[in-house]
Amino acid sequence: MVVVMQPGASTAQVAAVVDRVREAGGEAFVSRGVSRTIIGLIGDVDEFRALNLRAMAGVADVIRVSSPYKLVSRDNQPRRSTVIVGGPDRGVPIGPDTFTLIAGPCAVESAEQTFDAAEMAKAAGATLLRGGAFKPRTSPYAFQGLGRQGLRILADVREATGLPIVTEVLDAHDVPLVASYADMLQVGTRNMHNYALLQAVGKAQLPVLLKRGMQATVEEWLMAAEYIAQRGNLDIVLCERGIRTFETSTRNTLDIAAVPVVQRLSHLPVIVDPSHSGGRRDLVLPLARAAIAVGADGILVDVHPAPEDALVDGPQALVGDDLRQLASAVRRLPPLLGRRPAEHLAPAR
Amino acid sequence: MVVVMQPGASTAQVAAVVDRVREAGGEAFVSRGVSRTIIGLIGDVDEFRALNLRAMAGVADVIRVSSPYKLVSRDNQPRRSTVIVGGPDRGVPIGPDTFTLIAGPCAVESAEQTFDAAEMAKAAGATLLRGGAFKPRTSPYAFQGLGRQGLRILADVREATGLPIVTEVLDAHDVPLVASYADMLQVGTRNMHNYALLQAVGKAQLPVLLKRGMQATVEEWLMAAEYIAQRGNLDIVLCERGIRTFETSTRNTLDIAAVPVVQRLSHLPVIVDPSHSGGRRDLVLPLARAAIAVGADGILVDVHPAPEDALVDGPQALVGDDLRQLASAVRRLPPLLGRRPAEHLAPAR
Amino acid sequence: MVVVMQPGASTAQVAAVVDRVREAGGEAFVSRGVSRTIIGLIGDVDEFRALNLRAMAGVADVIRVSSPYKLVSRDNQPRRSTVIVGGPDRGVPIGPDTFTLIAGPCAVESAEQTFDAAEMAKAAGATLLRGGAFKPRTSPYAFQGLGRQGLRILADVREATGLPIVTEVLDAHDVPLVASYADMLQVGTRNMHNYALLQAVGKAQLPVLLKRGMQATVEEWLMAAEYIAQRGNLDIVLCERGIRTFETSTRNTLDIAAVPVVQRLSHLPVIVDPSHSGGRRDLVLPLARAAIAVGADGILVDVHPAPEDALVDGPQALVGDDLRQLASAVRRLPPLLGRRPAEHLAPAR
Amino acid sequence: MVVVMQPGASTAQVAAVVDRVREAGGEAFVSRGVSRTIIGLIGDVDEFRALNLRAMAGVADVIRVSSPYKLVSRDNQPRRSTVIVGGPDRGVPIGPDTFTLIAGPCAVESAEQTFDAAEMAKAAGATLLRGGAFKPRTSPYAFQGLGRQGLRILADVREATGLPIVTEVLDAHDVPLVASYADMLQVGTRNMHNYALLQAVGKAQLPVLLKRGMQATVEEWLMAAEYIAQRGNLDIVLCERGIRTFETSTRNTLDIAAVPVVQRLSHLPVIVDPSHSGGRRDLVLPLARAAIAVGADGILVDVHPAPEDALVDGPQALVGDDLRQLASAVRRLPPLLGRRPAEHLAPAR
Repeated sequence: MVVVMQPGASTAQVAAVVDRVREAGGEAFVSRGVSRTIIGLIGDVDEFRALNLRAMAGVADVIRVSSPYKLVSRDNQPRRSTVIVGGPDRGVPIGPDTFTLIAGPCAVESAEQTFDAAEMAKAAGATLLRGGAFKPRTSPYAFQGLGRQGLRILADVREATGLPIVTEVLDAHDVPLVASYADMLQVGTRNMHNYALLQAVGKAQLPVLLKRGMQATVEEWLMAAEYIAQRGNLDIVLCERGIRTFETSTRNTLDIAAVPVVQRLSHLPVIVDPSHSGGRRDLVLPLARAAIAVGADGILVDVHPAPEDALVDGPQALVGDDLRQLASAVRRLPPLLGRRPAEHLAPAR
Repeated sequence: MVVVMQPGASTAQVAAVVDRVREAGGEAFVSRGVSRTIIGLIGDVDEFRALNLRAMAGVADVIRVSSPYKLVSRDNQPRRSTVIVGGPDRGVPIGPDTFTLIAGPCAVESAEQTFDAAEMAKAAGATLLRGGAFKPRTSPYAFQGLGRQGLRILADVREATGLPIVTEVLDAHDVPLVASYADMLQVGTRNMHNYALLQAVGKAQLPVLLKRGMQATVEEWLMAAEYIAQRGNLDIVLCERGIRTFETSTRNTLDIAAVPVVQRLSHLPVIVDPSHSGGRRDLVLPLARAAIAVGADGILVDVHPAPEDALVDGPQALVGDDLRQLASAVRRLPPLLGRRPAEHLAPAR
Repeated sequence: MVVVMQPGASTAQVAAVVDRVREAGGEAFVSRGVSRTIIGLIGDVDEFRALNLRAMAGVADVIRVSSPYKLVSRDNQPRRSTVIVGGPDRGVPIGPDTFTLIAGPCAVESAEQTFDAAEMAKAAGATLLRGGAFKPRTSPYAFQGLGRQGLRILADVREATGLPIVTEVLDAHDVPLVASYADMLQVGTRNMHNYALLQAVGKAQLPVLLKRGMQATVEEWLMAAEYIAQRGNLDIVLCERGIRTFETSTRNTLDIAAVPVVQRLSHLPVIVDPSHSGGRRDLVLPLARAAIAVGADGILVDVHPAPEDALVDGPQALVGDDLRQLASAVRRLPPLLGRRPAEHLAPAR
Repeated sequence: MVVVMQPGASTAQVAAVVDRVREAGGEAFVSRGVSRTIIGLIGDVDEFRALNLRAMAGVADVIRVSSPYKLVSRDNQPRRSTVIVGGPDRGVPIGPDTFTLIAGPCAVESAEQTFDAAEMAKAAGATLLRGGAFKPRTSPYAFQGLGRQGLRILADVREATGLPIVTEVLDAHDVPLVASYADMLQVGTRNMHNYALLQAVGKAQLPVLLKRGMQATVEEWLMAAEYIAQRGNLDIVLCERGIRTFETSTRNTLDIAAVPVVQRLSHLPVIVDPSHSGGRRDLVLPLARAAIAVGADGILVDVHPAPEDALVDGPQALVGDDLRQLASAVRRLPPLLGRRPAEHLAPAR
């Protein structure tokens, strides 16, 4: 950490900061410049943070120079991780050597719709099925998902297709229920700061898909992952899904650069959701290609057998020819970047 | 609602939209322009939303022209509401005729610190005490609050000072516990989209202080209030606390205009948090004055007997002379705007 | 400046940075921490910037700890400045002791409209007249202002009312023309980064009103002022007019906290434009009150005798009762904050 | 256009709007809903805008449903354009069938540095040379470019390498000078709203590279292009270079989705600048790949023979191995998307 004093801070004020740091067991090096004095701190950053140096007289700013996350940081684990979804025998890897397509309906509406969407997903090269049984909706008057019934449908479709399931959990107390059906627990963008939920999935024995909050910085996103990791679960996959900006021509602004930025900072896998970021069907394919090319470890795509009848986010679901083009991109682009399409570790049924 | 067709949309595509609306029991009026055709819809908007018109061929956009919230809308209740905090006999009003100062420590750290802060708050003119027993923290390694013990301290301080308590609840399942101590339940900025929590406080028999999400539009904020209202609780006070923007000289950008904007759209009271928006002690007083002058129904301010030792957000807590200036502003400015300082309906002990 | 090395940076890489700084005549203090090494630099910051340390091997970040502006910084001139508009004999002060109302039509449309607006402005307590002869418009098909004819109208209205004129200049080469009519040159929000224009007004012998770019940080805004000051003109008044954020219920988000933030960083006066930030007539009065209460040195307000017929920004122009309320606020609020309404140094005609 | 009336607007207020539209020669269709009345307008939108309907009594909102640009819109020219840079005989195309690499030093610092950078660019597959002689700098104390001498250097390097030149012009009055050397005029991000400059390049007989303002919406960007087109110059190439958001881990947030969004709205070519958006060398290659994959018509990349000595933006310039990987990506990816690398129409010297 570096403490920057105000211009004109007194010698006594500088000494007070140094004393406080030393009392806490740290070391402090003072550098006096023409207009400013700065103090470099050596020692336990967490300890320093509790010192509340910013509130001391004469202090202009306290600048953190090391990252506040540890378990998910690449500083401590330089080799990038691979997360296996679906169990050690027939699971699907998400990591640096492969490219994983996760596809399915935004919301589970019926057994038939989910089964048809899963078949579409599989045909496009998906090895994991996504589908929402609990849906977070801005309006209390909108369709909120089928709940437990939706989970049962997903389990049936997994049985029929062999695709492991990724599904969202909205509340800490629903984690055991959802975990009893799912292969991977999704924490959605609106819940990235729901610490009770982060801690609950941190105690679950399942991989977690952590979407970036639409308003979260990369650092806050990694801190949310740290919450999960701190409870013992390091099987975390990060998902960039667009951030909120002033631009209104797309629903959110896909922060494509976040993929290489995060891969540099953390060892966790990072995937991209090109469906929710753009919010428009005609953008899914170009954004999916961009995600592959930028080096993402996978993508998460909405498909729906009849988008016009979808209860949630129909306008962005892929169909027909787009899906064929997606399949082609997923097959052809990753090998150019040294990746193979992710397949089940053991053949699926 | 208005459906805007793409340039060059065919007559058949227009007819398909009209048919779909009429089948759902609505009426559709077609206006053909030089380059575009638009279709005005009359009927039940919620019904139309389920039609998924945006996914139909030839549709460029669907524009909503009425607000998606109902219970909290001023369209349906033109007179602005007053919420009473602390029970009908000794409660404190928050509403259009008064100006209410809510003050206290950001986090409850000890009985002594909380009692001292409450005395400071009262001396400054506060009639409600805020204080956090459960703290949402970005880092899993930071102080998370005293929990139930903190609630007991708050209750003791209420007993001693007569100030009703406002305190945050983080998880839907903690609502009964917190409600058994508190006079008003606070939903924090990170939880504005936690629908399980919104529904839980919506079923509680206590007033709710709903902070704006740092990334939430005014409309989304009012939709979150609608979630609470829909469960039967209309005693909601909204709190503007700054939004996230590109500017980094302040922690958040206080959206001061949101106060009159919301007062025009909703009948609910609106207060301002000048402490968390700026994140700096020297900004609290000017922003508090601005909040009074813009017409807010109250403010929420951090005070701490020894900010340098605060475990949470010490740098922004008011002390000494600032507090006296705040007291003066709270006494002198509201009357110029036709408001009286809010007092207990019956004298406090 | 502080150089932060990457975790694992070698001793040689650290030495290379130190050498480079010393060759440039600076001093470098190395602090080795558990995970990071940081290097504090003492000497001429501008010199260091040219060293391009960020591009050196092993460097993670270079953090600037002193402000990049000098002439406009309060570090170098602690006493806040007062700018006189309209010449030393009949001029109007803008500064820390007074509160100045600048009002007038957004665009000069005719002699009659401008004269009527000036009378409205004067009745409301304005001592400076604003009006645009050159208008920056997003669309090439929109009204672009009357140009030189508009300047002549403004001069006539000044003759008739005694109000000095504030008007916008759009192009560096128009500065002499506009300066031959105006008492204060306005640089608009879209031109805050137009360095040719900043330099041209820096050489003019007239005060400058510098609006904040709608996308500019406070630091960039002060750097733009530094451009003007560096050419010899320190008669600069800053104007906060709202920044661009994700919120769409107002045209821009008024960053009210920028007023005290800037007053802490710079000695220059700061005023607020409540008309353009909100873009709605019903917000002008509350935002004007907030600007006074937050401590602004003045406000800039649109008035128009017939807003429904305005060629530019009619919806936000004040009329009738609003104007009377504005006059009342401008008279009553500033004295509570230790300011007197700004008047002409010698009586106007 | 659609006029949305306030809830409770009177019949007389609705009639007043209809009358005003009809007097202006338009047609108005009234649709009365349960809570709102909406009025659809048919006719000349520019005419309607001058009516200032938003300022009329009872009007809540006026929604535009057609785009405000015409000449650059794809509505009026469905086939995407190709712009030739460097004259009809040895020019380089930028358009839908090709992929064009533009590379060179951010700033021209010397003849040797520029020549070396041009050789690097050519080796990587570039067919156009970029280089700045006039540099817009946030600080008045920073290097501002070599000016006319820099232009001469660029012309010499063109003579030696056969690469046509793209260079920035900062001021309307410099357009003839810069145009006498350059093959393509660049308008930078800080000048996207400099209307005097847009009009001046609109009258030049050279192609224009129009960078997106860092704060500009897609619509405003297209309106800036419309300014140029309206003066008679339709040889415009748009360049996405990142927008300003809350995220600070990258200098700007590359809005990769803007490429397909703009290609749908406008017939103009769109390229991407992966160097300035990220501001970090390690992001250039992944972002360049993403730009190719998303369907951009080209990219603009910084190269520098000795980035550590660069006077401007050294940290983001590509060198050595990165450049070889860029060359490989430019050669291998575009053909997968049906594009060929752009070459000179006739062989370069």
